[in-house]
Amino acid sequence: METHSVELVEVGPRDGLQNERELLGTDTKVEYIERLVRAGARRIEAVSFVHPGRVPQMADAEAVMAAVPRQAGVSYIGLVLNRRGLDRALAAGVDEVNYVVITTETFSRRNQGMGVEAALAAWHDIAAAARAAGLRVSLTVSAAFGCPFEGEVPPGRVLRIVESALATPADELALADTIGVGVPRQVRDLTALVTRAAPGVPLRMHFHNTRNTGYANALAAVESGVRVLDASAGGIGGCPFAPAATGNIATEDLLYTLQRSGVRTGLDLAATAAAGTWICERLGKSEAPALLGRAGDFPAEAR
Amino acid sequence: METHSVELVEVGPRDGLQNERELLGTDTKVEYIERLVRAGARRIEAVSFVHPGRVPQMADAEAVMAAVPRQAGVSYIGLVLNRRGLDRALAAGVDEVNYVVITTETFSRRNQGMGVEAALAAWHDIAAAARAAGLRVSLTVSAAFGCPFEGEVPPGRVLRIVESALATPADELALADTIGVGVPRQVRDLTALVTRAAPGVPLRMHFHNTRNTGYANALAAVESGVRVLDASAGGIGGCPFAPAATGNIATEDLLYTLQRSGVRTGLDLAATAAAGTWICERLGKSEAPALLGRAGDFPAEAR
Repeated sequence: METHSVELVEVGPRDGLQNERELLGTDTKVEYIERLVRAGARRIEAVSFVHPGRVPQMADAEAVMAAVPRQAGVSYIGLVLNRRGLDRALAAGVDEVNYVVITTETFSRRNQGMGVEAALAAWHDIAAAARAAGLRVSLTVSAAFGCPFEGEVPPGRVLRIVESALATPADELALADTIGVGVPRQVRDLTALVTRAAPGVPLRMHFHNTRNTGYANALAAVESGVRVLDASAGGIGGCPFAPAATGNIATEDLLYTLQRSGVRTGLDLAATAAAGTWICERLGKSEAPALLGRAGDFPAEAR
Repeated sequence: METHSVELVEVGPRDGLQNERELLGTDTKVEYIERLVRAGARRIEAVSFVHPGRVPQMADAEAVMAAVPRQAGVSYIGLVLNRRGLDRALAAGVDEVNYVVITTETFSRRNQGMGVEAALAAWHDIAAAARAAGLRVSLTVSAAFGCPFEGEVPPGRVLRIVESALATPADELALADTIGVGVPRQVRDLTALVTRAAPGVPLRMHFHNTRNTGYANALAAVESGVRVLDASAGGIGGCPFAPAATGNIATEDLLYTLQRSGVRTGLDLAATAAAGTWICERLGKSEAPALLGRAGDFPAEAR
């Protein structure tokens, strides 16, 4: 691998916890974030500003943001899906907002209560307002590798959404394999396609390990030039469409592969794995989806 | 991926079951094999002819071999580590024997009761005798990506073992990441090195998913020209050096990635996943290490 540095965005506190049945207290969430910051995480998807009736796991977003450690170089991302969410994110003091457009009509209507065109219109409105308020704004194209309702998602559809969305600039564009169906071939194809269409926009990738393809996808992304990857310490998260399935790729497991491939991330492997094991215990999991905490680093004394 | 066909060697009945605490009856082992054959498996590591006191899981090797379905095109592999094992393998009627040399002195002495040089000498003896008896003979170089006792294994050491061993020809050479520490960079480096040193010998790779690198390694092997991969239906197996860790890469999960990458294997995904789930239930596992049985194929109706 030619690369020597990749930025990992820690999404455990939001995408991870949001998809766990167990509801944690604000203190526990804040301690998870504190542990992640101590382990070296510098960009953290910390909260979601959606209606608490829809996502009770994120109901205390303001309280979490009021308590997280604020230090130079640590940036907190809040997910927002509408203007009300953006207002809450601004008041709570996030550093960055992330907005989501889903590739298919069915999934978009079920998840966001509106079709793809309406979601794109809302993006233009929210991105402009967030920028005007001085926030970083990133856009995630969800179900970019497949949809639980409509099946295969043609790369051309992802491309059309990206091109339409970027009429309003994004600081970063993320492609998400929301349900964990993608394979490296798709990662390479989509990366090439989107990079050609939006050459100046930093690309980020978000993988789930639902079918054991997540880590191979992450490496394929790095080999294709992607320099920002999402992951959740502990591998928490799950998949709402496959209740027994695993969730996000685990930060510690990704870190193991990247470090052993000569790629720097700035994160400490042992501390990240410990944070992952810790949050899995809080969630009452008998085993963490992450494997590093169970298997240990190699060579044992190396890092 | 340029490849269009990869052969999967099903190692669940031997490497998988051998590393599970639960002892299964002969009938259950035979039914596992029957289910695998019905799912399309054509090369199966079925038994090990080692001392039953050392590996009680394999004590009924003769009884298993007497009961497995014998049909054209289905080949059974038996692991042998000495002449006594070879005699048993010949009497039991296996189609192929596999012998193992471990890369490090410490691991070799602990596992096989002899050093690397003695293990190589035994290989020459066993390979010649097996060939004279008309059997296919394959050699596995174990701990080729790292050793639980000695740490990093320099690629040059793997190369020297390969070169020394191949003074007696092998029908196939396997490199095994016995403890699941390897990453794709190592796979590519070792494949290039060994292919140059032994250009005419078919190369096979054996990966464990102990640290979530196994599937990325398998794809890297295929992309590097390897055409034979080991896997165990259900992902059973574990790791004796990390009791809570997962085992071999799962046949059904590997199959998912390969099929979605346009690589043919001849195996049926649904039937393989069902065999994997079935054996995990027999082993009393609350969850299979394989994820396909939990998450389902995608698109659901595709295959």
